Amino acid sequence: MYITSLENAPKTKMEMEGAYKVFKQIPLSAKHGAPTYSFRVFTIEPGGHTPLHSHDNEHMNYIIGGSGHLVVQGKHYSVKKGDFALVLPGEEHQYRNSSADEPMVMICAVPKEYE
Amino acid sequence: MYITSLENAPKTKMEMEGAYKVFKQIPLSAKHGAPTYSFRVFTIEPGGHTPLHSHDNEHMNYIIGGSGHLVVQGKHYSVKKGDFALVLPGEEHQYRNSSADEPMVMICAVPKEYE
Repeated sequence: MYITSLENAPKTKMEMEGAYKVFKQIPLSAKHGAPTYSFRVFTIEPGGHTPLHSHDNEHMNYIIGGSGHLVVQGKHYSVKKGDFALVLPGEEHQYRNSSADEPMVMICAVPKEYE
Repeated sequence: MYITSLENAPKTKMEMEGAYKVFKQIPLSAKHGAPTYSFRVFTIEPGGHTPLHSHDNEHMNYIIGGSGHLVVQGKHYSVKKGDFALVLPGEEHQYRNSSADEPMVMICAVPKEYE
């Protein structure tokens, strides 16, 4: 059993190429005993974005706060607080915070082997 | 790629023995193409609770709204909006909404084989 909150999860700048104004936290992962999956949280500042990339695993997302766009295979989809999204393995994707003043905060859950 | 929200996910009463005033939605699962995990959402009305039980898979939880208690192996832990929790395989557990007037809403993510 493990309980935490974002206030207790270290926050680091995402240094991956193509990331801009993105910060990462990992509230639940193999480090905390999770057997299968990891719950990461990304905070994308206004005007920021995650890398436009693809990989062999899926993303399972929940938008905790803010709004923006999810770009998948070149198409843009609006997402906002309360939305869930599934990005499938191999799909090229990127999250963009297109708001002027509000951070976009989202759970980005992945198989523990990915992170 | 699949995007949804709780407004679009059918809501059913949880009929499992020991559940009281609990409603279930499944915004992301194998049905939507998820390869590994399912994101379920439980709404526990004031005074309600999930079953006190254990099983061979973990729960990964995020409290979307409200507050209550997570009981694990007989110990009671307070949880509130914004908290993350990991319940390990085999741990006896139960979520209780101990508030008088606010629903407790939480993501309860599990391996897709469980649901």
